[in-house]
Amino acid sequence: MSRRLRRLVILAEGEFRFHAAKTALGVIRYGPDPVLAVIDSTRAGRNASDLLGPAFDVPVVATLGEVLPLGPTALLIGIAPTGGRLPAAFRSIILQAIGAGLDVLSGLHTFVSDDPEFAAAAREAGVELIDYRKPPERMETSMGRLHRPGSRVILTVGTDCAIGKMSVALELRNAARHAGLSSSFVATGQTGIMIEGWGVAIDRVVADFVQGTCEWMCEEGEARGDWVFVEGQGSLDHPAYSSVTLGLIHGFTPHAMVLVHKPGLAEHDFDHLPERSFPLRPLSEMIRVHEEMAGLVAPSRVVAVALNTSLLDEEAARREIDRTAAETGLPCGDPFRFGADPLLAELRARVDALPWVSRTEVTA
Amino acid sequence: MSRRLRRLVILAEGEFRFHAAKTALGVIRYGPDPVLAVIDSTRAGRNASDLLGPAFDVPVVATLGEVLPLGPTALLIGIAPTGGRLPAAFRSIILQAIGAGLDVLSGLHTFVSDDPEFAAAAREAGVELIDYRKPPERMETSMGRLHRPGSRVILTVGTDCAIGKMSVALELRNAARHAGLSSSFVATGQTGIMIEGWGVAIDRVVADFVQGTCEWMCEEGEARGDWVFVEGQGSLDHPAYSSVTLGLIHGFTPHAMVLVHKPGLAEHDFDHLPERSFPLRPLSEMIRVHEEMAGLVAPSRVVAVALNTSLLDEEAARREIDRTAAETGLPCGDPFRFGADPLLAELRARVDALPWVSRTEVTA
Repeated sequence: MSRRLRRLVILAEGEFRFHAAKTALGVIRYGPDPVLAVIDSTRAGRNASDLLGPAFDVPVVATLGEVLPLGPTALLIGIAPTGGRLPAAFRSIILQAIGAGLDVLSGLHTFVSDDPEFAAAAREAGVELIDYRKPPERMETSMGRLHRPGSRVILTVGTDCAIGKMSVALELRNAARHAGLSSSFVATGQTGIMIEGWGVAIDRVVADFVQGTCEWMCEEGEARGDWVFVEGQGSLDHPAYSSVTLGLIHGFTPHAMVLVHKPGLAEHDFDHLPERSFPLRPLSEMIRVHEEMAGLVAPSRVVAVALNTSLLDEEAARREIDRTAAETGLPCGDPFRFGADPLLAELRARVDALPWVSRTEVTA
Repeated sequence: MSRRLRRLVILAEGEFRFHAAKTALGVIRYGPDPVLAVIDSTRAGRNASDLLGPAFDVPVVATLGEVLPLGPTALLIGIAPTGGRLPAAFRSIILQAIGAGLDVLSGLHTFVSDDPEFAAAAREAGVELIDYRKPPERMETSMGRLHRPGSRVILTVGTDCAIGKMSVALELRNAARHAGLSSSFVATGQTGIMIEGWGVAIDRVVADFVQGTCEWMCEEGEARGDWVFVEGQGSLDHPAYSSVTLGLIHGFTPHAMVLVHKPGLAEHDFDHLPERSFPLRPLSEMIRVHEEMAGLVAPSRVVAVALNTSLLDEEAARREIDRTAAETGLPCGDPFRFGADPLLAELRARVDALPWVSRTEVTA
């Protein structure tokens, strides 16, 4: 699990803002590697702290040239566009980075290592091109594996994609560590893999093997800890990505789920026809549908709601958390904004009380 | 759409029986190409008519050598094992076929055209290696496309995999043709593609693009006919394949669904741990769950139940059809055994009455 740290520059040209740069922001917030700068010429002079708060002091610069004197060792592509293709404007910056001896780290569907021009330049410069979305060689269908006795597998699900399911899973895992619990985080997307150092970008796996892949990832998560927090993807009612969501639910067969929601968001987020709209559904309906669909394979319960209150001021956020807890009868909090400890404590009690959670003593 | 017919030999060594040889049986029953023989040395001397009835007179032989004097032009691999890998025993027969100048047609996950030994032999012999499961180059996410006005998109869904969803869709399309309706069949699996000559093996598509691929396949189906019968895959409660099923439901957004069920089958069919069992669910629950899950993206209704009564004698089959119709309140029939015309007639009336079916005149 341990590796030498990289000194990162993150490429987010034209896009260093919430949502569009969710890979960049996730790596800055949760990754182990120091980030020297973000490249976005349209926002030069700003700082990651404008978006993430004063703890995250990373300058935004206009060009790679400005960062080279600081000794970066890798360029990380910090955006995740729909379909995952490489924006044309990025090509010259990537080639410049390779020429300057930097590894290139990418989570795009278009693999940088398959690009003949990048590959030739990388060979010449002796640098690595790493595609975090490359699927594993293992091509396995689900076998109906049972969870390791003593484990508690928690999957984050959501009312939409790109609202914080990975962050909630990471915050809960970190809170579990602080509480002295044996715990692990299972990354199912490229940003999570960049942060955690292992995992599979499940949306890149051949459809027939999605649930089988989740099954062996779950086994690896359970080998790393008793409390296994799995990063969810998409949403069950998403017109473009719901099948991946269901694959995670039936592949991981989580003991419990945490529903992530972003108050203020009204419609599903994806590149759809301009004349159409896909409104989000009420929390109560989403809770019911998740439990019903999970139960077709293995029983599970939504045991908490995590709100991403980034669209609200602090007072409104606290009000919305209280309102949601009352509406759903579930523990509710914003783990990024107000800490994950209280949510974890309430979640633990509820999970341990579920009848399908193994009564075997947790090992740690 | 038209192509020169092939003269097929079907390889099903050790496996020429229901279920294991579903590709072989589907191609014999519905494909346009004459089938000269089936190779299965463990069943030499038998005939496809033993399984499919007297209309399907195809001898089973022990070796390829016995068929060569009849002038076959292609060897078709007629089994679809879990995981789709090539049984080792098949290698020598495939090499013998290539050496004898036959094309090789495969629907396995392991692509015959990627096999260095097969590829070299095929180049030498000047024959083609065709992998029907190869995914298309198009990598697109769903855009929320609306159906062509006047179209009626019908998806077959089921209580399990490998129970006849493809056959029901083909029988209904054929009945629609006989009734003078403009109609098409959309193949979503390798056997359907072998039969129809176009389509995508959706379980081989990268997960992120499943729903987008369904969307453009639907457009192609609608370009070929007004009544679009789509071959379903898996089942919504299948531990290994449910995500593919949901991808079809949310990708094709069918106006209506036909639920396929095999009376007498008790458990889900897949390679699972021997100590586990995954019972099938009641029809009423499956109908409700399908309509609810479809409705998260676009409204749909289960408008008929198609039974695969192959485990029952004729009297028991007719009784079960009546019982199921009474239980579900839906038209019910076994289109293979008793013809698809009555089911189609009842289905048409129900589909045309759905409030979300375009009132635009059907063109044909």
